[in-house]
Amino acid sequence: MATIKDVAKLAGVSVATVSRVINKSPKASQASIASVTQAMKELGYRPNANARALVSQSTNTIGVVVGDVSDPFFGSMLKAIDQIARQNGKQILIGNGYHNATTEREAIELLINSRCESLIIHSKGLSNQELIDFANEVPGMVVINRFIPEIAHRCIALDNHKGSYLATEYLIKNGHQHIGYVCSNHDIEDTEQRLAGYLDALRAYNLPADDNYIEYSSPDEAGGEHAMMNLLSKNLPITAIAAYNDNMAAGCLSVLEENGITPPQDISLIGFDDGIIAKYLSPKLTTVRYPINIMAEQAANLSLALAKGDENKTCTRMFVPTLVRRLSVAQK
Amino acid sequence: MATIKDVAKLAGVSVATVSRVINKSPKASQASIASVTQAMKELGYRPNANARALVSQSTNTIGVVVGDVSDPFFGSMLKAIDQIARQNGKQILIGNGYHNATTEREAIELLINSRCESLIIHSKGLSNQELIDFANEVPGMVVINRFIPEIAHRCIALDNHKGSYLATEYLIKNGHQHIGYVCSNHDIEDTEQRLAGYLDALRAYNLPADDNYIEYSSPDEAGGEHAMMNLLSKNLPITAIAAYNDNMAAGCLSVLEENGITPPQDISLIGFDDGIIAKYLSPKLTTVRYPINIMAEQAANLSLALAKGDENKTCTRMFVPTLVRRLSVAQK
Repeated sequence: MATIKDVAKLAGVSVATVSRVINKSPKASQASIASVTQAMKELGYRPNANARALVSQSTNTIGVVVGDVSDPFFGSMLKAIDQIARQNGKQILIGNGYHNATTEREAIELLINSRCESLIIHSKGLSNQELIDFANEVPGMVVINRFIPEIAHRCIALDNHKGSYLATEYLIKNGHQHIGYVCSNHDIEDTEQRLAGYLDALRAYNLPADDNYIEYSSPDEAGGEHAMMNLLSKNLPITAIAAYNDNMAAGCLSVLEENGITPPQDISLIGFDDGIIAKYLSPKLTTVRYPINIMAEQAANLSLALAKGDENKTCTRMFVPTLVRRLSVAQK
Repeated sequence: MATIKDVAKLAGVSVATVSRVINKSPKASQASIASVTQAMKELGYRPNANARALVSQSTNTIGVVVGDVSDPFFGSMLKAIDQIARQNGKQILIGNGYHNATTEREAIELLINSRCESLIIHSKGLSNQELIDFANEVPGMVVINRFIPEIAHRCIALDNHKGSYLATEYLIKNGHQHIGYVCSNHDIEDTEQRLAGYLDALRAYNLPADDNYIEYSSPDEAGGEHAMMNLLSKNLPITAIAAYNDNMAAGCLSVLEENGITPPQDISLIGFDDGIIAKYLSPKLTTVRYPINIMAEQAANLSLALAKGDENKTCTRMFVPTLVRRLSVAQK
């Protein structure tokens, strides 16, 4: 790639002159503007954003770290953030963290080092303290889907426990007493909180909780298939299943169908997230809505405000899930 | 955010000394290393990647522009690229282009200006010439899902026409003579090529092509619902439908189900892409496999090789789709 020195050489001027032309200094002569512009064009030289960022200390960019862009949940989150960014004349840069401490740290550092003025971080691998340190360093950083008391005003979180409690309670209120749980095997707080919501709902209605009714697998369609097959193999008197998310629920449905078990008549099923897939499964999936769109919009607005030094103290920072009734749960 | 000047002031040394410490110059004294390191820590100062990139002219990063990260098709593509990047000790930065010339140009420029050494560009809005110009400027740039003759060795493309031809031919061979087409309304070459494949298959088997049998909408689930409703309203003797992609096919299935029309007995349906959703629809969707994973891996390897000045001339650059037979097509 051509450098500023190459431009200076071809134009027959000094590097300082090229710099004056690039920065539109009034000291640049018409002759030097013409020769430098021509040389830049010939060499395909591009005034360097790194150099500009060094001066302005900002790149006009919102950096976003997500778990994994290939999960549609993060796709929805990124789309909502990008819309707010565009409305504000900003672009976004995205990195994957994979719920792993090292990868998350590398992704955040790449974005910080690239002088993103705003950051929206979905982190499940890093400690609270490390995120607090990053937040102290970057005024425009916001944490999404995680609550850290010390930086509560910069966290946009969801009450995962309540979502799972609601889902399980809905199955119980429909007469189900033997309810399986298809759980994620990611060792993150969402897993713990959603499992706890399921268990607490059983306890609240005096139903026994049994480890045999819980199967762990990857939080995607293949994981749901795997967990569902294991639950069926155990020959338990299950009449309903709560799933960690809609992707796993889709896998459960597929295995039920292959085994001639018809939902919801034979087994009821409830998901979590209300992702796009929920509406297109058969039967259409009853689930718990994760309001990721409005949470992501709010995170984007907050990170932009914080980067400018403004702060709106009044907005909601802990969101609650709501039940979405479709066709996958039947009365027992 | 703290600057190098703030560090120098707090440490009581010159900016040049701070720079020597950051760049691990042998000229830095032990005393200045200690005081500068302490000041950097206190201020949360981070040696600037922009400054480092100015020296190295590279950020060790693969930049990727996709249509829209919230489309699972691009999610799969990004995941495959990220895996190759990580195997090579690189990170990726992602931008959205939305199939729009201005947005694609901005996204590519942000990544070029950030000195990404490799670029993988999914562009449908920019002209061939503009992409050729970008490719000439950045030796490590590769174009995915588009074929540009002048830079053919840097394009990884799919034969879209053949995929759609295969899909339509499969319906015809199953005895269908009245075949609808659910088409994307994005004005991009994929749309044209897939529609042409459908029309050419009809012609090859001496079946009439009728504009009434084609409905245009957004290439997602909601678009599929919309197009399917319009096709049903026209009361045509359709017995099978080819869809632009699996997302639209999912929308078609939903509308058929709501109208008491049972696929495949009443209407057969074939998708395009073989995305994750295809396996979890009911009936499981017969579709055409878009080998985006291996194409993305190859694009990543090629862009890394090109950035280093190597080039493997032997690999496949034009991929062909294959038929995936599941349960959504029946014999007429």
